[in-house]
Amino acid sequence: MNRPDDTALLTDLYELTMTEAYLEEGMWDEAVFSLFARKLPARRNYLLAAGLDDALTYLEQLRFDAETLDWLASQGRFSDRLLGWLERFRFSGDVDAVPEGTPVFAEEPLLEVRAPLPEAQLVETYLLNQVHFQTAVASKARRVVEAAAGRDVMEFGLRRYHGTDAGLKVARAAYLAGVGSTSNVLAGKRYGIPLAGTMAHSYVQAHDDELEAFRAFVRVYPSATLLVDTYDTLRGVQHVIRLARELGEDFQVRSIRLDSGDLLSLSIAAREMLDEAGLPQVRVYASGGLDEDTVARLVTHGAPIDSFGVGTAMGVSADAPALDMAYKLVAYAGRPRVKLSSGKVLLPGAKQIYRHDVDGVARGDVLTNRDDVAPGRPLLQPVMRAGQRLPGATPTLADIQAHARREVSRLPPELRALAPARPPYPVTLGRALARAREHEVELWSAAP
Amino acid sequence: MNRPDDTALLTDLYELTMTEAYLEEGMWDEAVFSLFARKLPARRNYLLAAGLDDALTYLEQLRFDAETLDWLASQGRFSDRLLGWLERFRFSGDVDAVPEGTPVFAEEPLLEVRAPLPEAQLVETYLLNQVHFQTAVASKARRVVEAAAGRDVMEFGLRRYHGTDAGLKVARAAYLAGVGSTSNVLAGKRYGIPLAGTMAHSYVQAHDDELEAFRAFVRVYPSATLLVDTYDTLRGVQHVIRLARELGEDFQVRSIRLDSGDLLSLSIAAREMLDEAGLPQVRVYASGGLDEDTVARLVTHGAPIDSFGVGTAMGVSADAPALDMAYKLVAYAGRPRVKLSSGKVLLPGAKQIYRHDVDGVARGDVLTNRDDVAPGRPLLQPVMRAGQRLPGATPTLADIQAHARREVSRLPPELRALAPARPPYPVTLGRALARAREHEVELWSAAP
Repeated sequence: MNRPDDTALLTDLYELTMTEAYLEEGMWDEAVFSLFARKLPARRNYLLAAGLDDALTYLEQLRFDAETLDWLASQGRFSDRLLGWLERFRFSGDVDAVPEGTPVFAEEPLLEVRAPLPEAQLVETYLLNQVHFQTAVASKARRVVEAAAGRDVMEFGLRRYHGTDAGLKVARAAYLAGVGSTSNVLAGKRYGIPLAGTMAHSYVQAHDDELEAFRAFVRVYPSATLLVDTYDTLRGVQHVIRLARELGEDFQVRSIRLDSGDLLSLSIAAREMLDEAGLPQVRVYASGGLDEDTVARLVTHGAPIDSFGVGTAMGVSADAPALDMAYKLVAYAGRPRVKLSSGKVLLPGAKQIYRHDVDGVARGDVLTNRDDVAPGRPLLQPVMRAGQRLPGATPTLADIQAHARREVSRLPPELRALAPARPPYPVTLGRALARAREHEVELWSAAP
Repeated sequence: MNRPDDTALLTDLYELTMTEAYLEEGMWDEAVFSLFARKLPARRNYLLAAGLDDALTYLEQLRFDAETLDWLASQGRFSDRLLGWLERFRFSGDVDAVPEGTPVFAEEPLLEVRAPLPEAQLVETYLLNQVHFQTAVASKARRVVEAAAGRDVMEFGLRRYHGTDAGLKVARAAYLAGVGSTSNVLAGKRYGIPLAGTMAHSYVQAHDDELEAFRAFVRVYPSATLLVDTYDTLRGVQHVIRLARELGEDFQVRSIRLDSGDLLSLSIAAREMLDEAGLPQVRVYASGGLDEDTVARLVTHGAPIDSFGVGTAMGVSADAPALDMAYKLVAYAGRPRVKLSSGKVLLPGAKQIYRHDVDGVARGDVLTNRDDVAPGRPLLQPVMRAGQRLPGATPTLADIQAHARREVSRLPPELRALAPARPPYPVTLGRALARAREHEVELWSAAP
């Protein structure tokens, strides 16, 4: 599927028409846009920031090539001035961002872009497309990792995610959040995520009987994971035990996989059967429509499951497949900008987040204007200046995973639980923002 | 972001390891795999088949190039035999499929692949990735189109879909289902979908006042859609009216856009204001977190809204972001295959769907073995033979949209409603399949 590089056109039409208007009006002044979630989904105590690396790569690489410009010209919608500007386009702005893998809360910017207005506007759609989705999935995946309470989690749902890019980015976001491996071969190549895989029911079905399928598979992959539920789970476990007797010391099967039925009782029965057969080293791997709730239930009830295979529900973030996330103009030409649409009141100006830790535990954030100070550590950091990514703004995915683990471990325990934290984590406004909000609320209440 | 063509690696690791095992075992016989939804989501009376074109393009174009093979070799997991086989890989099989835009029901195959086992297995992940997602979105989008009851629907949610491929495929699937336009510029280029766009709040905010922003925008785009809710919706409408007085005969604004608040009362008030100002030609466009339910409510209550902008909830299929869809082996080496996993019993053999119409209304389907016959029209059609797409298996997207409109119009009215149809549409099994099901249920009940 070789395609021309059409990334530049992966944008909303109005980004181009507004850019046209800004050029016409000579509105070149500096704008600040803030990318943040207006509120959190009901079942998220925090979001885990993700997607920054793809956002920065886009800003570094965005170009309108000749083929793209020709197509735009053929549409008869755009002026030569706009097309000339697009031809010369290089993103020249600054970006400050919260590092990937950092927990963030409602209204806290994940990133802020400062650039001439047309540049900062033009990049909106793609930045949101990547940061929104990866953050949604990392936040969901972290819940699954918490539920697994130290047991392995593998991501393997490429087939039911939303297209090819989602397949890659789910693997990335899940790994960043602490998932240990993926079945997605390309994600292994591109991101260096450990690959893992088992076998499908079709493999067992294609053989005349299950035991014969197991025999054949371990001839090729001696340390395989054998799927035991194609016909009857516990009979499948018996077949694994029989295979162990046949192979004696050559038996190296690493695990069995349960993919249906009552995973609690089946895992208990399977574990007992394996232990009684002298196979304590054979691990139990469970899958089949799992999410953080089902994983938590199995763990809480002591299911003897060593690894969880999780796919669809995690990778589509089934209970919150989208976040209320936006990219909003907060300053132009040196003046803060507000917006008063019903229910969508906006805090003006570039911002900073200060996170206040006590004894290594985060106790609250203060959201301030960028130049204000507050107690705690500032979370937004410079990552791009004049269109160039700064040194240090390209952590490895393993670094990001470690950062996420560290930052999440600093959250209060009730934030890490699956249930909604009551009260939620405190995010307060610095004095200037608090005044701005009061003023806005007054303005909004006064509107006819 | 130019990348090597890595599509071949966009697969689950186990597709490669199972292929390795099949080569080792010499299991070259013909397999039939069936791609179908095991059941429908609670709020779907049918699914609208989509994604076939991408599936067939994949089968035609799938190759393992030198760079891909080198990387696979470097992993130390795969034999030279497998790598050599992948190097020579060309999909040589047959595909029968339901045309895109056809309503289908639980257990009905959207497509069936018949090919030597290793080939048919290898392509599983990508086929599901495309057909599952596009079908989920087309099915959701059709509900929005039904709810709009003839009013325009525009798709504009690229920013909150799941990555870049989702952005394109949502635009495609929504258009196929009857949505009229998209904001996604690349979808316009690639699929020829009409482009549409309005303006963002940032445009209004960047100007000193709203009226000045409107004046500036219509100088560039005289027939623009003006967004009126940045500060106060009805004051925004007054600004549009004032602009009309200023411009006199030069006023060509096509519509106003409401994006927040109570869209029913605001649209009524805005319509009255525009009519009283002698601007009956200015249309009212509504957006802001809409889905089929909110659209239906507005239409039912007679909201004077001409067009709906729908994004996130439609494009992530928010109430059913994934389907229980699978790609299952149903025959190998001429013998039907079953699977008895708890709750996932499988109907064996290649199939056909017969849809029985009475007076132009579909009254029921019969799912049969491929070679059986039943009253009605067969829905699965040959689309690929020996790896070559058949003439007629490349309808235009406009053709598919027309086909969808026609096929949906043949469904009984209760199927097209948003509420669950009671009783659901009848899908019965042909005699041979009914016997197979009984036999399976017996087998399954008999399992210890």
